[in-house]
Amino acid sequence: MHIHDFQEMMRRLYFSRDIERGTKGNYSWLVEEIRELEEALDKNSRKEIEREFADVLAWLVSLANTVGVDLEKAALEKYDRVCPKCRTCPCQCKF
Amino acid sequence: MHIHDFQEMMRRLYFSRDIERGTKGNYSWLVEEIRELEEALDKNSRKEIEREFADVLAWLVSLANTVGVDLEKAALEKYDRVCPKCRTCPCQCKF
Repeated sequence: MHIHDFQEMMRRLYFSRDIERGTKGNYSWLVEEIRELEEALDKNSRKEIEREFADVLAWLVSLANTVGVDLEKAALEKYDRVCPKCRTCPCQCKF
Repeated sequence: MHIHDFQEMMRRLYFSRDIERGTKGNYSWLVEEIRELEEALDKNSRKEIEREFADVLAWLVSLANTVGVDLEKAALEKYDRVCPKCRTCPCQCKF
């Protein structure tokens, strides 16, 4: 699934609650999920780790929806600047 | 771009450095980016906000690469359980 489509799916499901909670509220939830991800990593529980990764991404896009940021666009704007060689080989060049 | 493809792109670019830094190191970077996102939100600087969202996603997939989690699979496993109606209307049902 495209990053953009995941963000839109979360918007359809949660936007009215996200906007009510506001930027600070959604940011706090994101921080809480980051903390829970650390707990899962410490426990080394595969299932929990996967669920917490899912939750961090979910709250990241909820926060992005609240402030009107397209996460896919923002991510590609910053990181999709690799050379054609990078795309087809495991070289470590970065520019 | 698919979530999976973004994760693979970041793997091609950064995996050798990510694995060297280790889980704790990458988690610390993720936390730092979460903090910088808060700063950007407080400043209300559009360009910075977009860059910090990009960085949080980048470090989230770097961490996922380090522990061998497919972020797209994990996210869809947890959140892509909406009813057919949810996909086509802005209803708020959740199950």
